[in-house]
Amino acid sequence: MINLTNTAIYPGSFDPCTNGHLDIIERSSKIFEKVIVAVLINSSKTPTFTVEERIDLLKTATEHIPNVEVVSFNGLLAQFAHDRNAKVIVKGLRAVSDFEYEFQMSLTNTKLNPNVETLFMTTKSENMYLSSSIVREVARYGGDISDMVPKVITEKIYKKFK
Amino acid sequence: MINLTNTAIYPGSFDPCTNGHLDIIERSSKIFEKVIVAVLINSSKTPTFTVEERIDLLKTATEHIPNVEVVSFNGLLAQFAHDRNAKVIVKGLRAVSDFEYEFQMSLTNTKLNPNVETLFMTTKSENMYLSSSIVREVARYGGDISDMVPKVITEKIYKKFK
Amino acid sequence: MINLTNTAIYPGSFDPCTNGHLDIIERSSKIFEKVIVAVLINSSKTPTFTVEERIDLLKTATEHIPNVEVVSFNGLLAQFAHDRNAKVIVKGLRAVSDFEYEFQMSLTNTKLNPNVETLFMTTKSENMYLSSSIVREVARYGGDISDMVPKVITEKIYKKFK
Amino acid sequence: MINLTNTAIYPGSFDPCTNGHLDIIERSSKIFEKVIVAVLINSSKTPTFTVEERIDLLKTATEHIPNVEVVSFNGLLAQFAHDRNAKVIVKGLRAVSDFEYEFQMSLTNTKLNPNVETLFMTTKSENMYLSSSIVREVARYGGDISDMVPKVITEKIYKKFK
Amino acid sequence: MINLTNTAIYPGSFDPCTNGHLDIIERSSKIFEKVIVAVLINSSKTPTFTVEERIDLLKTATEHIPNVEVVSFNGLLAQFAHDRNAKVIVKGLRAVSDFEYEFQMSLTNTKLNPNVETLFMTTKSENMYLSSSIVREVARYGGDISDMVPKVITEKIYKKFK
Amino acid sequence: MINLTNTAIYPGSFDPCTNGHLDIIERSSKIFEKVIVAVLINSSKTPTFTVEERIDLLKTATEHIPNVEVVSFNGLLAQFAHDRNAKVIVKGLRAVSDFEYEFQMSLTNTKLNPNVETLFMTTKSENMYLSSSIVREVARYGGDISDMVPKVITEKIYKKFK
Repeated sequence: MINLTNTAIYPGSFDPCTNGHLDIIERSSKIFEKVIVAVLINSSKTPTFTVEERIDLLKTATEHIPNVEVVSFNGLLAQFAHDRNAKVIVKGLRAVSDFEYEFQMSLTNTKLNPNVETLFMTTKSENMYLSSSIVREVARYGGDISDMVPKVITEKIYKKFK
Repeated sequence: MINLTNTAIYPGSFDPCTNGHLDIIERSSKIFEKVIVAVLINSSKTPTFTVEERIDLLKTATEHIPNVEVVSFNGLLAQFAHDRNAKVIVKGLRAVSDFEYEFQMSLTNTKLNPNVETLFMTTKSENMYLSSSIVREVARYGGDISDMVPKVITEKIYKKFK
Repeated sequence: MINLTNTAIYPGSFDPCTNGHLDIIERSSKIFEKVIVAVLINSSKTPTFTVEERIDLLKTATEHIPNVEVVSFNGLLAQFAHDRNAKVIVKGLRAVSDFEYEFQMSLTNTKLNPNVETLFMTTKSENMYLSSSIVREVARYGGDISDMVPKVITEKIYKKFK
Repeated sequence: MINLTNTAIYPGSFDPCTNGHLDIIERSSKIFEKVIVAVLINSSKTPTFTVEERIDLLKTATEHIPNVEVVSFNGLLAQFAHDRNAKVIVKGLRAVSDFEYEFQMSLTNTKLNPNVETLFMTTKSENMYLSSSIVREVARYGGDISDMVPKVITEKIYKKFK
Repeated sequence: MINLTNTAIYPGSFDPCTNGHLDIIERSSKIFEKVIVAVLINSSKTPTFTVEERIDLLKTATEHIPNVEVVSFNGLLAQFAHDRNAKVIVKGLRAVSDFEYEFQMSLTNTKLNPNVETLFMTTKSENMYLSSSIVREVARYGGDISDMVPKVITEKIYKKFK
Repeated sequence: MINLTNTAIYPGSFDPCTNGHLDIIERSSKIFEKVIVAVLINSSKTPTFTVEERIDLLKTATEHIPNVEVVSFNGLLAQFAHDRNAKVIVKGLRAVSDFEYEFQMSLTNTKLNPNVETLFMTTKSENMYLSSSIVREVARYGGDISDMVPKVITEKIYKKFK
């Protein structure tokens, strides 16, 4: 087995990072030697948090995990995985509708880069209702997000919506 | 990272092994140092192939992959993973209904053994229609199963239904 | 059992109200002492009908049901349920994709307000194809919407698209 | 509003009762004046626990809730709801596949008894992986079911499998 | 276009025939020159109605449609389609779970017989709750099946359960 | 059987045409005397390719099939089917989420035009990951689309994104 297999890429919008994302990062970091959290720069969507803010939140939330790197990327995920010598893409699944989309993306990525394998993890049940859009919705109206996002970034998220 | 993480268990009935199963085994064997293919002895179902036959078919189909071991197991998968020092369970997903069941099993196994992580792979698209029951159905009526199961075991499967 | 439990909130966009919505309102009004139909003011979407128009259509369509109140609301549904002393949120389900989204919203609302319970009703089969967007699409091109919306509001909806 | 509406029937196999079932019973008992837990006598399935055992487990698990009654029933649920003057059937939903089946049963029951309304609740997220069959499977092999079933019936369930 | 394409096979268990089945047969008979209703002889299931009874019910229910033939078949559907020079298999879909299974069967049948195409129709919404097993369940307890099965076979079905 | 039944309409956005679309067109053209590929002019979405470009790509991709006509249309599909004397609408299905939406559209179209029948085909498994949006995404970043779209239009698509 060559060295490459021990790097996993965890791609996403992370707008913002939630406890669900952190859970996947923590669990992946126990299985793979290195986990690259890759913030997608998607020109066709208007995120609430800038790329820099999203990276900052992720770095703050993951600074206790030594083998995690947070970066942004632009372009095709399959190409990015190739550039970083990663053989694994990690994705979390919450629901059937996640699954369908991710299934198609997984087949596409393997088509474009036959050396990359997508591995799916299930979200922990207590995070199943969580999504970045729910966090934004609740924070926008001043609701309680303390069970939804990592403690160390709660204040930063509230500040954004003030 | 400790050594344990590099062993993955791939559990199933394998009644019989199909190209879909072999594909998951081959791809897993590139990511993990060792893959244990674990044939479930399920007392409440009556399989078509005996445990010994199913192990024989799997051993024949995987003998070109050095880091694969084929065994049977009885009892709880979470316990078996613990006994074998494995931190990963690998499962293939074909469809939404697979996903729902596997999702629940994944949550159950993590409840019973918090050190075990279930990772899901998508079936290659050409194997999406495949299942052991379809192979049995087609073979039973003498239909062509040559694209459905590993070449080296085709004859053994036909023989079973004569 | 305290009095609160007999008020149900039925939230939605109602852009415009359809026979499917009216059916849920009628059936809810037989189970709960009071049903509050709550028109969501969602600043991130551009509705076809204004909030005032949507409330007017709902009031016209429900004026035969004494225990129904039509209001608009802004903010978090969990908070609104709390403010109105309602312990029940009622939602109609047509399809699996409705279900997944509503499931997550239900878990979120209970997280934010542990006293509120979401109860789901199935749409009557003859309304299963109905949605506000289909009504808008058909009305826009002058198609027949007489089986899709309450009779008393048909003309008002056609007028909007002229 | 007539008195009838405040009785809800919660039907099922309960083979055996789990924390997921108890959760639905507790939450229903706060919304409806009376909850009738109805154990289905299904002659075409062979349950692990007898009807008497299942009723005993449910009575033990719900004895802290005054407005709950545990009974068995045979025949059509729509008829049973009619006989008991109940206008509501309560069901818990865990997953999409639950939903599809329950959706059809709901339409059937309303067809047979237009006065009965089926209301669905979502399972609490920590019970999402739970089912009677998983409890049986884990208990059969001596695994830990203490988070899966009400504490007061844990011993009775283990005893069954000895 | 050769003549073959105008024959469609509509396979199933039909245990017993329902209004949903009849609806698919009627609609198919308007699109294809001939519709062969093919009753599957499945040795691994124990049907409630014998093959002869199921064929009799179907013949009675379809005798007003001239271009329908009712037969039984054994073996692989792909082979049967080939034997009857049919290029089309017709299936009705009610729900997502139907869809997944039928999807796999469709891919399998095209694999075994590349000349056969499976076409799916949606069930009319008023039949969406209907299935043979629901008809059996309701008839068994003397419930009203008059909206569930063709009028001309209602009595025959009740008689079976006496 | 009247002549009308042998015309099928295959509607869509085709932004741009993929191998999945071409596959459905080819297979439909073997079953129906005429297939009208109908490019939807949807004023509420901003397509990447203009209607003229989409029609040009489709005409180029289908010029080997004599009984195919490519047109654009505006308004309600049910009306368009009526205007063209077509009794069949053909749709390809890839996934469960496709299915739900198409199911509702099928019920709507039959409501608006009782003479039109929607028939669904499954996508060939090798095209299951394909969608127009994936083609656009890959082409935008210069990835390899040669397995995703008909060979004769590959260059035209790349040119669009330069």
